[in-house]
Amino acid sequence: MANKFADLRAQMTSEARARVQAKAQAMLAEMPLNELRQARGLSQKMLAEVLHVQQPAVAKIEKRTDMYISTLRSHIEAMGGELEVVARFPDGAVKISNFADLGKVTAV
Amino acid sequence: MANKFADLRAQMTSEARARVQAKAQAMLAEMPLNELRQARGLSQKMLAEVLHVQQPAVAKIEKRTDMYISTLRSHIEAMGGELEVVARFPDGAVKISNFADLGKVTAV
Repeated sequence: MANKFADLRAQMTSEARARVQAKAQAMLAEMPLNELRQARGLSQKMLAEVLHVQQPAVAKIEKRTDMYISTLRSHIEAMGGELEVVARFPDGAVKISNFADLGKVTAV
Repeated sequence: MANKFADLRAQMTSEARARVQAKAQAMLAEMPLNELRQARGLSQKMLAEVLHVQQPAVAKIEKRTDMYISTLRSHIEAMGGELEVVARFPDGAVKISNFADLGKVTAV
């Protein structure tokens, strides 16, 4: 059975909720995949080696504005990260778990 | 130019970083799309109407373990939410902005 938002949020005071949400939002930098790669100190060539593809394939993915979630997950895992798919609502946020195990096998 | 993680994190004390991260993680419930829909008080039929598809199409999407990010975004926006794609690393998290404008046109 699904958790109700009301139940989840009832465990925090409204002050705490507002504070946490503001800080969590502020903490999250926003950038495209190529900038994230650079911020991690990786070249396209290095990432291509981890993914067992050629460097142009990495360049192509970084330019895409849509892709399968499994493709994105492999790409992020190759950088040493973990993909989180989040649905944010005015009254809370939820991680979508449908895709939780995608890419675990193919990612190196 | 990309922001460095070090710069982003330098603006917070280590105590603040740990506290925020722990709270942000705790705040995020994790559930599959069908449970999220139920938690939002929506039926497949209601969601199908918003998306201008038939109810079985919604059921099918809820069962998928992989899909295009644009498809997921439309689905979440139809529930009144906003999709966030986050890459989480041991030293911080980043929102991936490649997909920021996807689905804005097709979503109702």
